[in-house]
Amino acid sequence: MSKKEKDFVKEITSREEDYSQWYVDVILKTEMVDYAPVKGCMVIRPYGYTLWENMQSRLDKRIKDTGHKNAYFPLFIPESLLQKEADHVEGFAPEVAWVTQGGSEKLTERLVVRPTSETIICSMYAKWIQSYRDLPVLINQWCNVVRWEKTTRPFLRTSEFLWQEGHTAHRTEEEAQEETLKMLEVYRDFVENDLAIPVIRGRKTEREKFAGALKTYTIEALMGDGRALQAGTSHNLGQHFAKVFDITFLDQDDQLKYVWQSSWGVSTRLIGAIIMVHGDDRGLRLPPVVAPVQVIVVPIMPKKTREQVLPKAREIMDRYRDKIRMEIDERDYSPGWKFNEWEMKGVPLRMEIGPKDLEKGHVVLVRRDTGEKIFVKEEDLGETLESLLAQIQDNMFQQALDFRNENTRYCDNYQEFKNIMEEKRGLIKTGWCGGDECEERIKDESKATIRCIPLGEEGKGEGHCICCGQEARETVYFSRAY
Amino acid sequence: MSKKEKDFVKEITSREEDYSQWYVDVILKTEMVDYAPVKGCMVIRPYGYTLWENMQSRLDKRIKDTGHKNAYFPLFIPESLLQKEADHVEGFAPEVAWVTQGGSEKLTERLVVRPTSETIICSMYAKWIQSYRDLPVLINQWCNVVRWEKTTRPFLRTSEFLWQEGHTAHRTEEEAQEETLKMLEVYRDFVENDLAIPVIRGRKTEREKFAGALKTYTIEALMGDGRALQAGTSHNLGQHFAKVFDITFLDQDDQLKYVWQSSWGVSTRLIGAIIMVHGDDRGLRLPPVVAPVQVIVVPIMPKKTREQVLPKAREIMDRYRDKIRMEIDERDYSPGWKFNEWEMKGVPLRMEIGPKDLEKGHVVLVRRDTGEKIFVKEEDLGETLESLLAQIQDNMFQQALDFRNENTRYCDNYQEFKNIMEEKRGLIKTGWCGGDECEERIKDESKATIRCIPLGEEGKGEGHCICCGQEARETVYFSRAY
Repeated sequence: MSKKEKDFVKEITSREEDYSQWYVDVILKTEMVDYAPVKGCMVIRPYGYTLWENMQSRLDKRIKDTGHKNAYFPLFIPESLLQKEADHVEGFAPEVAWVTQGGSEKLTERLVVRPTSETIICSMYAKWIQSYRDLPVLINQWCNVVRWEKTTRPFLRTSEFLWQEGHTAHRTEEEAQEETLKMLEVYRDFVENDLAIPVIRGRKTEREKFAGALKTYTIEALMGDGRALQAGTSHNLGQHFAKVFDITFLDQDDQLKYVWQSSWGVSTRLIGAIIMVHGDDRGLRLPPVVAPVQVIVVPIMPKKTREQVLPKAREIMDRYRDKIRMEIDERDYSPGWKFNEWEMKGVPLRMEIGPKDLEKGHVVLVRRDTGEKIFVKEEDLGETLESLLAQIQDNMFQQALDFRNENTRYCDNYQEFKNIMEEKRGLIKTGWCGGDECEERIKDESKATIRCIPLGEEGKGEGHCICCGQEARETVYFSRAY
Repeated sequence: MSKKEKDFVKEITSREEDYSQWYVDVILKTEMVDYAPVKGCMVIRPYGYTLWENMQSRLDKRIKDTGHKNAYFPLFIPESLLQKEADHVEGFAPEVAWVTQGGSEKLTERLVVRPTSETIICSMYAKWIQSYRDLPVLINQWCNVVRWEKTTRPFLRTSEFLWQEGHTAHRTEEEAQEETLKMLEVYRDFVENDLAIPVIRGRKTEREKFAGALKTYTIEALMGDGRALQAGTSHNLGQHFAKVFDITFLDQDDQLKYVWQSSWGVSTRLIGAIIMVHGDDRGLRLPPVVAPVQVIVVPIMPKKTREQVLPKAREIMDRYRDKIRMEIDERDYSPGWKFNEWEMKGVPLRMEIGPKDLEKGHVVLVRRDTGEKIFVKEEDLGETLESLLAQIQDNMFQQALDFRNENTRYCDNYQEFKNIMEEKRGLIKTGWCGGDECEERIKDESKATIRCIPLGEEGKGEGHCICCGQEARETVYFSRAY
């Protein structure tokens, strides 16, 4: 057994023993990612990147189906542009990378490597938008962004990451708000249906909103260790940027007006969410809709039957390959070792084909989500594979939803609140007076932040504030968060 | 007529009058691109970016079909990594952007914004590759790169551009060479069949090869003004990088060996090639295979027939929309103005539907490549559209090939050579002694460079060197180039 083979078979740290180490073990050993020789940066390896490509293509379709088009804006933002919007620069300036030299020449104006693109995009919109006929502008961009982070963790928080950022401009306040919530709903639909991760839609507090936004909306997910993760945000920018970048249009009534804007984004962070929501002590469990490999074929072939088994296994794979992402593992390792590896890599279904199966005219399927073993006649395979993948997807969502429900508590006693946050974590739903002081005190004392004020009735104030005891203006979700 | 409308209708500069201005007029007025508020950078607007997405998806499929997988490596490269390969650093250091500060902290080691990723990728390959069983490594990356250019022109030469870069590692020299030529052929196939641009495949001279490569291969195309453009390159890196980055593997014979490598890339520069090969005095002409809009539907509807024409036009579009990229122009402009605009935007086919056409049960199609007007019965439309788009694609390739053939001259007299380069430009095929001095003198005196030594028999030396008159070691193509 080679060194590499031994490394693979070696157990990964259990989640209970050390959740952070489990996470690192899983992402490195499954070759999702590797550390780069640049502080805080990651290399997304083919297995991780293929997952991202599958996610991208599903989300990109939704973004286009809602009328948006993709474009590309420059990586570099002149310092003077970043500084135009006061809150924005305050929020981002401390964490940007600065380009100060080009070739052998020292730059007269420093350039920021984009941490987000509102400023550079607004400078173009000011040029492109003249009349109400030019509205709405509905543009999205897939790109890399850089935020100089002190503490990093692959996918969750890295100095460079990949994302999409939508930037829209509208004629009225109502349209901008409608767009903001529409894209939040697109994210919910994508994350719940394709990534099998249940989320809570809500609004961020003033303290937690995007630097420069009027209102920030979020989808929040609960990870396997009871901490929350902000999985995507959609901002109503109001006219903040329009005013400083002078984005005006001549309306039908011949008045010159400022546009109303939104921006929204999700990133490779979602890969971290998939890992932490679905993973178990054996490794990854990937939702079939986006899994790089949906079915792994492992031929069981002692030397003497190799010539019968292998062609059959290939033939079966070729039959379904157009519709299902299948791969065959023909490497010279033992079946048991391959089972372990593909389980660790989170492939939803394993197909075993051995000489005995050939005789009986069936194959063996093993589900990653339940471990269940299923014998399927070859002629029923096409239908069974598709329906099993759909079942696995549903089941993974249900398991994640059950976990979240078990770990969501209503609590109206502050001491109890702090105990839960220390011991069990999870989400706590409770009343909040709406005051900045209580929000800050709770964070200091429990490390929990307000994840969101849920949309609709659910977010209405009831009872009293968990911290100061005054009348609750809102009902909110608290959690420790990534 | 609004200001915007007038701007659109205004003629673009003719190619004969000023080719550079024609290029700028076309790309700005068709909203392919805009200048960014950062020196030398461009904004790729939705119309240009959709073209790039279509190109990407066609090329990406070919890259995957030849066994490669996509991955993502960091944007930043530590200075020490860039400096490892002597030729490489000499070639790239003068034209990179330097990050010297992160947040409020001055960096202890400067970071380069990647001009290309050989160095950072090799540092990872050294870690990933241990055994012959790990080979070949076949990875591609789609990303942005930065080269600090003094003179820039959108798509052709900008400080930031988008591209793909493939990086492979192999067990033997032969395999690396085979890969290098295989990818060159993938590029030829893509550029000729999808972009309708004929190319010459060849090898670069020592002087023109990639910094750090053993051999560089290229595909060269001839633009509408008689200048050549390097449209894609594929490098056999030999063991240059393997040795400085210590990328070794234990071979089957138990010997520790260095890998053999290749790298290859094409960029958004190809968009510039499409514009300059196919464009005419009326604007863009886009090859149907990659055109963002393949068929534009222009309903001709005086007010009183609007209610009959528009639903019919929409119905026809919806019928073919799954297979053909169709859009309908329902804006409140005159048909003539719309015809101009969509011609300028290079849409391959225009479909006119008016009240008289409805009566006769036909529609009018107008080809962008020939201006031909075709009346088609509604029931024949599906078949006709597909076959016309294929004919246009073929015709555009043939037109470009004819133009290149007309502008490719054999010449063995140096004075005549210089005259042609001054007056007619185009490609000149001639003998070359293989000497650096002649290559340099010709460049100084005629501004023409050796575009490539064509592959196979064609590149064999015959007759004498155009410059020194000594025996020709190679037959080469010269041209002034972008």
